[in-house]
Amino acid sequence: MRDALRRGIPVVTSNKWPVALYGVELAELAREKGVPFRAESTVMSGTPVLSTLVEGLAGTTPVSLRGILNATANFILTRMEEGLSYEDALTEAQDLGLAERDPTADVEGYDAMAKAMILAGLVFGTQLRPGGVVRRGISRIDPAQIDAATSEGARIKQLVTLERSEAGSAARLTARVEPALLPNEDRLAGVSGVVNAVVCRAEPVGEVIVMGPGAGPELAGQGVLSDLIAVAR
Amino acid sequence: MRDALRRGIPVVTSNKWPVALYGVELAELAREKGVPFRAESTVMSGTPVLSTLVEGLAGTTPVSLRGILNATANFILTRMEEGLSYEDALTEAQDLGLAERDPTADVEGYDAMAKAMILAGLVFGTQLRPGGVVRRGISRIDPAQIDAATSEGARIKQLVTLERSEAGSAARLTARVEPALLPNEDRLAGVSGVVNAVVCRAEPVGEVIVMGPGAGPELAGQGVLSDLIAVAR
Repeated sequence: MRDALRRGIPVVTSNKWPVALYGVELAELAREKGVPFRAESTVMSGTPVLSTLVEGLAGTTPVSLRGILNATANFILTRMEEGLSYEDALTEAQDLGLAERDPTADVEGYDAMAKAMILAGLVFGTQLRPGGVVRRGISRIDPAQIDAATSEGARIKQLVTLERSEAGSAARLTARVEPALLPNEDRLAGVSGVVNAVVCRAEPVGEVIVMGPGAGPELAGQGVLSDLIAVAR
Repeated sequence: MRDALRRGIPVVTSNKWPVALYGVELAELAREKGVPFRAESTVMSGTPVLSTLVEGLAGTTPVSLRGILNATANFILTRMEEGLSYEDALTEAQDLGLAERDPTADVEGYDAMAKAMILAGLVFGTQLRPGGVVRRGISRIDPAQIDAATSEGARIKQLVTLERSEAGSAARLTARVEPALLPNEDRLAGVSGVVNAVVCRAEPVGEVIVMGPGAGPELAGQGVLSDLIAVAR
């Protein structure tokens, strides 16, 4: 991607980790060379999140972001609320082709961490390193915790959070991926199954929410297609 | 705007009615001349809806759309749920600068109708005429109807609906602006006060939702700014 951009060739990618690890560098290189660098499908697949937050909110200052960004983890937690054990929910997700045989990336939060890093880089302009993201998985959530949440009028979600530190410096951004207890009134509490969502607070707009399906090969293809159309235009 | 586009000058506007009445013509002229024509702030103000549905979902086929698109009407209905009469809620909206002295455009659905026509033109590529949009206002909603809705587990909202007719022809789109009873489970039922939202169904993505503040002079300015940045880029 670096080589392509250096030669003035536009880059469209659906490959998460290069963007997570080097998003700021690649975006700066693209800007310098005056060519597009787009990665829409890396976050929420075909649901347009990056273009909405980067281009739609151009001119605003992003302040914080919360999101449910892994469809598999969200599906498992939703099925556990419906009475399944973690193991049975995971098996169902695997049978549906939602979870891979080794589900570590989804259930331990690595996939959501990559997406948090992509959003930090491309929306907030801050390059995070994996060691700089607090990460806790959902694999140790048990039915008793789900029941306790339900009886409190709340839900457990794998939540991604990005927040500017109080110091206010653009370079300081705290990032977390962890199971969080969301009261039912929270807009993200109602985001169930394979639906994903992002709540971005930006000045002077306030909270903007984008919600939609977060996974699927056809949808990832759609994300790439929308990027290719943007490049062609 | 026609003259500017014909001369190859990009157009950014926050003026609803020209886009509502001639959106398809202006967008086609812009495409023909290879210059941008943008009107982000005409729908949901600074919340990026048009760019998300037109550019973010580029390559998809929009099928239907539902939206809460008038902040004043939504504020009045929300305050009526909290116990105010229609008249008191309207007065409060006027005191807050949300409603104009003559509130007809907001409460009788003309403003939402213009936004429905803009979305029909720029997202669905179908030019509607005012006479082709079913329009009913909220000014005759009374507290008894609000209470009846609440006791049924539902809410009354000023709802915009765009639907392709069953014939499936791209030219046939039905458009409605009317008070609608939304069950509390409906994602749009929870959209309260000055928050607006759009649910767009597009193939092959499914439902994409964009939610955010729908009014305010600073926000309208932000919508224009994001368009100017897009043009400059």
